Amino acid sequence: MHSIGIDVGGTKCHGVLVDDSGAVVAETRVATPPAGEVVGVLCEVVGQLTAGDVTVCGVGVGLPGLITPDGVVRASPNLRGARDTPVGPDLRSRLGVSVHVENDATMAAHGEWTAGAARGARDAVMVTFGTGIGGGIVMGGVLQRGAHGFAGEIGHMIVDRDGIECPCGRRGCWERYASGSALAARAGAASGEQVVEAARNGDDTARGHLGEFARWIALGLANLTNLCDPEIIVLGGGVMDSHDVLFDDVRRSFSEALYSPTLRAHPRLELAALGHRAGAVGAAMMVARST
Amino acid sequence: MHSIGIDVGGTKCHGVLVDDSGAVVAETRVATPPAGEVVGVLCEVVGQLTAGDVTVCGVGVGLPGLITPDGVVRASPNLRGARDTPVGPDLRSRLGVSVHVENDATMAAHGEWTAGAARGARDAVMVTFGTGIGGGIVMGGVLQRGAHGFAGEIGHMIVDRDGIECPCGRRGCWERYASGSALAARAGAASGEQVVEAARNGDDTARGHLGEFARWIALGLANLTNLCDPEIIVLGGGVMDSHDVLFDDVRRSFSEALYSPTLRAHPRLELAALGHRAGAVGAAMMVARST
Repeated sequence: MHSIGIDVGGTKCHGVLVDDSGAVVAETRVATPPAGEVVGVLCEVVGQLTAGDVTVCGVGVGLPGLITPDGVVRASPNLRGARDTPVGPDLRSRLGVSVHVENDATMAAHGEWTAGAARGARDAVMVTFGTGIGGGIVMGGVLQRGAHGFAGEIGHMIVDRDGIECPCGRRGCWERYASGSALAARAGAASGEQVVEAARNGDDTARGHLGEFARWIALGLANLTNLCDPEIIVLGGGVMDSHDVLFDDVRRSFSEALYSPTLRAHPRLELAALGHRAGAVGAAMMVARST
Repeated sequence: MHSIGIDVGGTKCHGVLVDDSGAVVAETRVATPPAGEVVGVLCEVVGQLTAGDVTVCGVGVGLPGLITPDGVVRASPNLRGARDTPVGPDLRSRLGVSVHVENDATMAAHGEWTAGAARGARDAVMVTFGTGIGGGIVMGGVLQRGAHGFAGEIGHMIVDRDGIECPCGRRGCWERYASGSALAARAGAASGEQVVEAARNGDDTARGHLGEFARWIALGLANLTNLCDPEIIVLGGGVMDSHDVLFDDVRRSFSEALYSPTLRAHPRLELAALGHRAGAVGAAMMVARST
């Protein structure tokens, strides 16, 4: 039986059709609409992927922000106008199949845990570094959602109390230091990619910014390790496309940032095996597994 | 069937004998010895509590620091000279009963979760504020130890990267701001209790220190909430003896420190119901439940 996963990003909705084994057999991208039109667009993605002749057991949808266990989007930075928008209930009644709507980073964690780098791990943390930072936590062999479905909001872990202002209204959130937008802001560049490109071309200033960026990434990973003691941390998201100029520094800084590094076993740091597909594949695997 | 729990503190080992229902039926305190003598002293505590005529199903022992799942103490600030000291294996062979040695904050969390304020919670965090800060995490209805038994080392969560130096070798650990020793250091007092006493007597400077102290406590609790999304956070340890001048400020600062406070359900903040006995009772309940 096939299933569909859709990752709702800031500009594109990325849909995949996966088979029993988790392999992607069809893929599509359409523009992300405002909140009021999102259910219609999600139905369109499903129509494109099934082309009228594939039966699916369910549709999983990943979205950033706070999503209730029922699939109501309380607020989402990628969905203009979303405020208690019942994406899950509406999509379910339109499609007549199992629908599961959840935080996009949780979906990505599910993908890496069931079909990627953290496959089979009992305790794992997945961190998605993009414009912001998202996370998913597996503890005791269970993907943990917390009491209200909001676990894993690790981008808003405060790492510098009187630090940089965050749009969330507080100061010093991790994603103000260790996300792609934070790298761009630090270097005064148009984008994080621009800094990375300069570093690849041997620019020492850009390399310095990347080294400091890696230290901030490592600090947050060390905090997560002290809290959750995972066997593996999977690093994904667009920022990790730059792993060639970043990953060695992150590893080195991580060892230094750990509490009692000589006394304890370290988690492995690994890149997301599913790359940009982690969110969509994880969403599909969520409904594949629950039916 | 009875069981015994022993909480190994910096100065005293606190032992309790509990019955089936978790009620404490006997209690004793002896001086904490250096690491080399601890197994002998623990046997002495067991002897005092059983007085030769009570059969126990097991003995649980809580210790600060890093403890392996086998009960080997890798390092502990309360046990002078401990370095890979096999407390669990040695005690097991001396007593011939089930022995479970684990981090003291994990034991306290277990006590509050099975017989205290967090009883029945599916997702809960227990924080012990003493000389340092310890923690225990319940997620998905399971007390989580992590991959290597080191989960819940929340005192060393970095909340201020370039902040106060910590004996752990890093800077800005939460326990440098929100533990009893941090309060004393902030106020230039001999102890946290001294600051609290001055505040109770109306000293405005002391009250100011306590307000700032409450904000640091709340910041860490907000970080834990963003990560774990618990339904309840239980606050225990010696610092919470001062809840009368502290708890209202902590609650208020916590609401302000949360990410998206208006959009999400908050965890309840509660004081430890077992008070100073949480660690010892939790240790006893650990072996009572596993046999």
